[in-house]
Amino acid sequence: MEQRKVLVVGSGLIGTSIALALTSRNHSVLISDTDTNAAQTAIAKSGAQLWDGSSLVDLVIVATPPAVTAQVIRQMVLAQPTAVITDVSSVKGAIFSDLEDLDSDALSRIVGGHPMAGREVSGAASALSNLFVDRSWVITRNKFTSDASFTVVENLALELGAVPIERSIEDHDRAVALISHTPQVVASVLASQLINAPDSDVALAGQGLRDTIRIASSNADLWSQILAGNATQVARQVTSVAHDLAEFARALLDGDEPEIENVLAKGSQGRDRLPGKHGSQRTALATLSVRLEDQPGELARLFAVAAGAGVNLEDVRIDHSLGRMTGLVELTVEPHNIPVLEQALSSADFTVVT
Amino acid sequence: MEQRKVLVVGSGLIGTSIALALTSRNHSVLISDTDTNAAQTAIAKSGAQLWDGSSLVDLVIVATPPAVTAQVIRQMVLAQPTAVITDVSSVKGAIFSDLEDLDSDALSRIVGGHPMAGREVSGAASALSNLFVDRSWVITRNKFTSDASFTVVENLALELGAVPIERSIEDHDRAVALISHTPQVVASVLASQLINAPDSDVALAGQGLRDTIRIASSNADLWSQILAGNATQVARQVTSVAHDLAEFARALLDGDEPEIENVLAKGSQGRDRLPGKHGSQRTALATLSVRLEDQPGELARLFAVAAGAGVNLEDVRIDHSLGRMTGLVELTVEPHNIPVLEQALSSADFTVVT
Repeated sequence: MEQRKVLVVGSGLIGTSIALALTSRNHSVLISDTDTNAAQTAIAKSGAQLWDGSSLVDLVIVATPPAVTAQVIRQMVLAQPTAVITDVSSVKGAIFSDLEDLDSDALSRIVGGHPMAGREVSGAASALSNLFVDRSWVITRNKFTSDASFTVVENLALELGAVPIERSIEDHDRAVALISHTPQVVASVLASQLINAPDSDVALAGQGLRDTIRIASSNADLWSQILAGNATQVARQVTSVAHDLAEFARALLDGDEPEIENVLAKGSQGRDRLPGKHGSQRTALATLSVRLEDQPGELARLFAVAAGAGVNLEDVRIDHSLGRMTGLVELTVEPHNIPVLEQALSSADFTVVT
Repeated sequence: MEQRKVLVVGSGLIGTSIALALTSRNHSVLISDTDTNAAQTAIAKSGAQLWDGSSLVDLVIVATPPAVTAQVIRQMVLAQPTAVITDVSSVKGAIFSDLEDLDSDALSRIVGGHPMAGREVSGAASALSNLFVDRSWVITRNKFTSDASFTVVENLALELGAVPIERSIEDHDRAVALISHTPQVVASVLASQLINAPDSDVALAGQGLRDTIRIASSNADLWSQILAGNATQVARQVTSVAHDLAEFARALLDGDEPEIENVLAKGSQGRDRLPGKHGSQRTALATLSVRLEDQPGELARLFAVAAGAGVNLEDVRIDHSLGRMTGLVELTVEPHNIPVLEQALSSADFTVVT
C-alpha cells in the first residue's frame, strides 16, 4: 500500500508484530499502550514511535485485549476523525453491537479484522515481522463500512503477506466458534479431568492425549475474554458437543455398538474435512513413516536425506516412545514423491513404514 | 528370556510385531489367524511358522480384536493345557469377567497384558520388531494368576524392550478410560461437528483444531470394540466431560467470566500434569521456537545446527502457516541447552523466538 501513517493501539504479540512489519516497509508507525513498559518494549522492538495522544494518522489498528476493543475503537473515532479504524479481535459481533449507536460517518470508517496468526508465544518481545505470512486475515463490514475503508484494511493484510478473506460478522463468529473457540473449551475441559487423577494413571498418557489437550495451555485471561465475547455461538456449539457426549455415554451403557461405531466413523469423516496445507484436500497428500533410532543427529540425518533427494516435506509429525527420542516420524509429501523418498531413506538405512 | 515356543493368535500390527521381535531373538514362533491371507502376510513378514492347530507351546499371546479375545483365551486354555496365556487388549475387566468361570488351574496360567504401542498404522505389513521399545506394557493379574505365569509375561515385555508396569484390572481400566478412551471419544465427537459445517467455516481451521481432533482418524471398528469393552468406566468419564461442558455453556450464557477463566485455568493445570519425555515433570524441560522460512532444506539445516552444537532434541513440534512449510518449529531441550542452542541457531541466521 502507499506510504501511510499508522497508529497501533496495544503492544502485545499481534500489535507489535504489525508495527514491526510496517516500519520495515517504511510506513510511519506510532504505538500507544496504557502499559508504558509494554509500549517501550514494543517501540524498542519495532522501531515505531510513541503516540503523543494527538497526532493524526491514516489508519488505526486496535490490538488490545478483546474486552476493551469496542471502547478503544470508540475513543479513536473521536481522537482520529479521518482515519480508517480496524481491530484484530477474534470476536466480531459483540464488539460491533457495542458500537451500533455511532453515527454512519464513524461507522463508515470502521472495519473488523481478525488475523488468524499463532499465539504459541505472547508479548511484544516475541513479535515477528512475518507472523502473518500466509495466514488468513478475516475482514468484516458493518452496514456502513465504506468500500474505501475496506480496501485500506485489505491492502494492510496483503502487505503483511496474509490472505484477506471477507466474511459477514455472523459467519465469522459462527466459524471461529466451530473451528477455534469450541476446540479450546473442549481441550480445557478434557485436560481439567486430569487434575485429581492418581499419578499412576497420568503416567500412562501417550501422544494421543498430548495432542488432544495441547491448546489447554493457552492463556486463560485472554481466552476468557474471547469466549465471553462470542458467548452465544460458543455456548450453542459447546452444548451440541455436550449433548453428543451424553448420548454417546448412553449408547455405551446400553451396549449399542452400531451407534458407538457410527459416532466414531462420523468423527473420522469430520476429521477428513480439514484442508491440506496447500488449501487442497487432505487426500491429495501422502504420508510415509520412518522409525527413528535414539542416536544423536538422527533427525538431522533424516531431513538431510529428504533434502538431498529433492523432496519437499509438506508436514512432519513425531510420535514419541516413552523416555527416548526414538519414535515414528511421519513425513507428508506430494504422492509422486513417495517412491523417491522411500528409496532415498532405505538406501540411507532408515526403517520405512508405509 | 530363555528360548521359548510361542504361539501368536491374531496377525495384525501388534501380533505380527511381537512375532517379528521374537523370531529375531531366536524364539520359535507359531502364528494362527482365522484370516488365512493375514496369517500368510504375517508369516512372510516375521519368519514365523503357521500353527498346525495341535503343536504345544510355552506361551500363547492372544492378539485378536478385543471383542473375541476372551473367547480365544478360552479356546487356548483347552488347546494349550500347559502354556501361559496372555493378551494385548486395551480393556481388561470385560475380558476377565468373561473368564471367571474357568477353574483355578486355568486362571493361574492367564495373565492380562496391554502393550501401549502406537496404532498410527495397522496390519501385518506395518509390523516393526522395535514397536514396543520404551513403551509401557501394563500387566494385570486375575485372582489366581501364579507368580511364575506373571514372570513369563514380564520377561516377554522386557525382552521386547518395553517397560512392564503392574496394575490391578480396575486401575488399568480406569486409567485408560481417562488417558486414552475418553480422549478418543471427545476427539471423535468434536470432529463430527465439522460434517455439516459450510466449507468456508472449515477453511479457517488451523493447527489447534488439527491437533485436537487428530486421533479422530482412528479405526472405528477396532475402537468401538475397545470402548464397548470398557463401557462403564468410559461412560462415567465421558459423562463427567459432558456435564462440565454443559456447565461451561451455562457460565457463558450467564456471562460468568470468573467461572469461565477458572475452567480455562484448570485446563492448563491439568495439561501440566502430563509427564515429560523422560518420565520427569514437564517443567523440567524448556522450549525454544524458531521461525522457519519456506526454503528447501531449511528443516534439515535446522537439525544439523542443533546436532552440531551437541544439543539433544527431546521433542519437536511444527506449527504451520496456511499454504507453506514456513512456520514456527518448537524445539524441546533440557534447560541448560537453551543458551547453547540459541547461540548456534542465531549464528546460523535462524530467527529464534524464546
